[in-house]
Amino acid sequence: MRLGYVHTRVTDLEESRKHYVDTLGMRVVAEEPGKLFLKAWDEYDHHSVVLEEGGVGLVKLGYKCRTPDDIAAFENRIQSFGAVTERMSKGENLSVGDGIRVVLPSEHVLELYSEIDVVGTETGSLNPDPFPRHLVGVGVPRIDHTLVTCEDPATLERFFAECLDFKPSERVVTGLDRDADLIGSWMFCTNTPHDIAFIKGPNGKLHHFAYWLNDWNEIRHAGDLFAMDDVSVDVGPTRHGITRGETIYFFDPSGNRNEVFSGGYITYPDFPTITWTPDQLAKGIFYISRELNERFTTVLT
Amino acid sequence: MRLGYVHTRVTDLEESRKHYVDTLGMRVVAEEPGKLFLKAWDEYDHHSVVLEEGGVGLVKLGYKCRTPDDIAAFENRIQSFGAVTERMSKGENLSVGDGIRVVLPSEHVLELYSEIDVVGTETGSLNPDPFPRHLVGVGVPRIDHTLVTCEDPATLERFFAECLDFKPSERVVTGLDRDADLIGSWMFCTNTPHDIAFIKGPNGKLHHFAYWLNDWNEIRHAGDLFAMDDVSVDVGPTRHGITRGETIYFFDPSGNRNEVFSGGYITYPDFPTITWTPDQLAKGIFYISRELNERFTTVLT
Amino acid sequence: MRLGYVHTRVTDLEESRKHYVDTLGMRVVAEEPGKLFLKAWDEYDHHSVVLEEGGVGLVKLGYKCRTPDDIAAFENRIQSFGAVTERMSKGENLSVGDGIRVVLPSEHVLELYSEIDVVGTETGSLNPDPFPRHLVGVGVPRIDHTLVTCEDPATLERFFAECLDFKPSERVVTGLDRDADLIGSWMFCTNTPHDIAFIKGPNGKLHHFAYWLNDWNEIRHAGDLFAMDDVSVDVGPTRHGITRGETIYFFDPSGNRNEVFSGGYITYPDFPTITWTPDQLAKGIFYISRELNERFTTVLT
Amino acid sequence: MRLGYVHTRVTDLEESRKHYVDTLGMRVVAEEPGKLFLKAWDEYDHHSVVLEEGGVGLVKLGYKCRTPDDIAAFENRIQSFGAVTERMSKGENLSVGDGIRVVLPSEHVLELYSEIDVVGTETGSLNPDPFPRHLVGVGVPRIDHTLVTCEDPATLERFFAECLDFKPSERVVTGLDRDADLIGSWMFCTNTPHDIAFIKGPNGKLHHFAYWLNDWNEIRHAGDLFAMDDVSVDVGPTRHGITRGETIYFFDPSGNRNEVFSGGYITYPDFPTITWTPDQLAKGIFYISRELNERFTTVLT
Repeated sequence: MRLGYVHTRVTDLEESRKHYVDTLGMRVVAEEPGKLFLKAWDEYDHHSVVLEEGGVGLVKLGYKCRTPDDIAAFENRIQSFGAVTERMSKGENLSVGDGIRVVLPSEHVLELYSEIDVVGTETGSLNPDPFPRHLVGVGVPRIDHTLVTCEDPATLERFFAECLDFKPSERVVTGLDRDADLIGSWMFCTNTPHDIAFIKGPNGKLHHFAYWLNDWNEIRHAGDLFAMDDVSVDVGPTRHGITRGETIYFFDPSGNRNEVFSGGYITYPDFPTITWTPDQLAKGIFYISRELNERFTTVLT
Repeated sequence: MRLGYVHTRVTDLEESRKHYVDTLGMRVVAEEPGKLFLKAWDEYDHHSVVLEEGGVGLVKLGYKCRTPDDIAAFENRIQSFGAVTERMSKGENLSVGDGIRVVLPSEHVLELYSEIDVVGTETGSLNPDPFPRHLVGVGVPRIDHTLVTCEDPATLERFFAECLDFKPSERVVTGLDRDADLIGSWMFCTNTPHDIAFIKGPNGKLHHFAYWLNDWNEIRHAGDLFAMDDVSVDVGPTRHGITRGETIYFFDPSGNRNEVFSGGYITYPDFPTITWTPDQLAKGIFYISRELNERFTTVLT
Repeated sequence: MRLGYVHTRVTDLEESRKHYVDTLGMRVVAEEPGKLFLKAWDEYDHHSVVLEEGGVGLVKLGYKCRTPDDIAAFENRIQSFGAVTERMSKGENLSVGDGIRVVLPSEHVLELYSEIDVVGTETGSLNPDPFPRHLVGVGVPRIDHTLVTCEDPATLERFFAECLDFKPSERVVTGLDRDADLIGSWMFCTNTPHDIAFIKGPNGKLHHFAYWLNDWNEIRHAGDLFAMDDVSVDVGPTRHGITRGETIYFFDPSGNRNEVFSGGYITYPDFPTITWTPDQLAKGIFYISRELNERFTTVLT
Repeated sequence: MRLGYVHTRVTDLEESRKHYVDTLGMRVVAEEPGKLFLKAWDEYDHHSVVLEEGGVGLVKLGYKCRTPDDIAAFENRIQSFGAVTERMSKGENLSVGDGIRVVLPSEHVLELYSEIDVVGTETGSLNPDPFPRHLVGVGVPRIDHTLVTCEDPATLERFFAECLDFKPSERVVTGLDRDADLIGSWMFCTNTPHDIAFIKGPNGKLHHFAYWLNDWNEIRHAGDLFAMDDVSVDVGPTRHGITRGETIYFFDPSGNRNEVFSGGYITYPDFPTITWTPDQLAKGIFYISRELNERFTTVLT
């Protein structure tokens, strides 16, 4: 149904709290020793980001499914695919119900669940305002997607397609002939341009996770606050060719890459997949400059 | 899966062509005597708007489904609900395949189909630009939703929920007690705030159909072009409370109301439905002015 | 040199404080019994708005001049014109130096001064950020212009041109023939579209005074906050034909009309004055709707 | 009064025509052998850019003055300052009247004139639309400012202040002590943040000249068109700390740097000059990334 939570490691929880709360505007909904559970204002589930002290990089991703039956069906398909799953019980993750835990072919850990406490958005469900009167910092409304790296994008794409009904919106290939290799794939299970994406690289690594913003003006405003709050900016503001989105990439204090993302088109199950060839890839990534920086392609956590 | 086409009557086809092509920027993909088939630049299906000379108002709406099996399942549910359906054959609508035709409890005609010629977007599927280099007029990328009136919104809401798996994002009710009446319902089958909406009024009537725009700046730009092209503007630019969208309502030369719409939140099957009460309804409709004009609530086609 | 301050009457100082401070984001720089002195964040002079309890409408306008010599020259010309002036001493207005006070042919009171305490902007003059990190409400950066009514716009235009070197950017006339009457004039002494404007109506009345905003997105954001804070909105958001500006008109709690204004072109002393004829006046005022509401043209304070 | 024209050399007139006309949207108002005279749509004077085939870099800058008397006064002051002036006759520059030609201490050539044919804006002066219905490409409305390099910014700043009544809005200095050196100065003669700027570097060189755009959305749209039209982008879109403006730097086909610029504050003669210190200079130049690229600081024409 959607990306439900991103659980990452951070080197310093208090530094991270300043970043995710004061600058980005998330709210701490719960704390455990060495862990913060955070929620953005327009999300109604209990949390969408978990920060765990110790190191950097991804612990796991949670995708929320409609029903336990859906999860059971996914479990069957995943096992047929040959990936490892295990049952996950209510309470293993704060506020999250039963589900399954999958080790992807890319060594990332994925959790599927259908229940989590619903705490509601900050504007509520009765005659709501379009946004809270007193937003904090950037005021991100919700998380949007993640991009991870893997040694074998073709297998991971097949996994998400066959096991979880994701479809590719855009694909980067080494060429247009039949035996060309897949370098990256952007896949959706909603009507957005991507709910997850993966590009060729080391297994198990996180390139970035992204927050939604409403428009290009909010992207610039985020950039202004990043300058005021000494947030390290990687690239942007600019436009993506791939997804058409508008973006700034930046780093949390531990070095995990975040993105603020707006725009993009609508997808449907019959969306005609877009193909990018290597000669146009820089334009696909950063449409306006048509230049990739070294940092963007090599720094992973 | 989505709103596929809106088929409306217009009093003068050539006047309408100027409006939908020169001002809004759609492209004529086919013509039949007394009929124009139009497509917006970011749509890949054959057409999304059909204009038929003679009168005003809605002829029918087409919603595209994933598969013939989905349609068969919908057909069963519709018949159980007690609505009238008939089989529709490939060719009855130019470019559209087999499907079913339903007369809704609200007397609107709905067609469900899963096949239509795919002609592609104007930016294509290989290393595409984010928009065509030479947009015409407003340059609408796609249609978005419709709003129709009906005598019994509660029944129509139940129809769309039970027969077609739509869910309500927002509901206007006469009060918060159990036996309050439903005045309007905004329902989605995608992740948008609404794919169809209906409010209390005469059966069979069209309030408006809407085009997507990317942001508030494009909304103003559309308004500027409406002034230059002498398009009659009903309301806006403004913000909706309901859907959070940004909007201008305007009329085509025959008096059918159109909308340009941007913004809004993302919905999912577990979206907590929003409720509006009558005391806040003006704010729900036009958030900034909190005033309804007579024309907006009474002019239908 | 510029509009320096607007001094208005308000019926309730505490209600007004909420409006001008909490909603608009001005800061109270000084208080006297029954009076508030306010400053916007990007202004460096001591204050730009004075609110005085008791009634509604304009007490006086202050325009800041470069030097005492300029004021002396203006004084001569004003006396030659036949208008009444009196000397104004340092301290008559809090923080303001010597100058002159003029009763305009329109019965409005105008003060010219060249000295006022400089307190600096909120971002300062050393390596400044582009805006304060924690803006309040709309966060208006500065006042921009006023529009007043007068029985004889032609005389008032001549006064501002001959005595104070203002030039008309736009003029509304009853026709294009020689003996057509002037209905309204927009005049500038800076490079903006207008530093003052006047339209035919009763002498001594205020139509509105305006705050600058940076763009159309800030205009909508202001409108959103007006809805949240129950500020009465008169018209907008929309575009002006005259000045090309983007606007919302709204009322302070006492009924004085305010405006948030963005956009517009740049003027120079050789700017070719624009002429509007009555048949296009509604378009000139509200470009998108091309409709005037009764309230906009009749409510004055 | 304002920057009137920029006269630059280009290596290929036809390549340049495509850039300045098809991409930027200027109009060719006149041609001479090896020369194009161009005008943007919102300018009323005959031309604002002259392209001359043969090489790259600046030929000269024209600043328009109010009256011949003003020019005579400037001439006196310039001669007192010790700079070389010569009389310029009507016709030496197409459409331009009498004036003077100055070789600045920085070896740049500056022409002062008060008369040039007025051809009007493309929207005209009678009931005008806010922009032409059919803009070409980026659709720049007007030129805005230039930035040149010089060996001795302090002298050049003194020249513009003493001879031409410009004032500095922002200054970059080597430190805050008395004997610190001036690295760059942004100076205005209108109410904009800068009408000319200069930074330390070789004499006689052009860093860039800039076009005005209305807002951040137009900046991104320009960037999108630059990608479509294969225009080489140097930096941006981003925000400046200095001037607060929003920007993209790019190159014309000959390698002359252009800018599209929007935003910025308003200045007045009493504007409190802003000071930047070297430790914050990267933030001053590119506020969001706080990084300077080598190309930006070294490529001049």
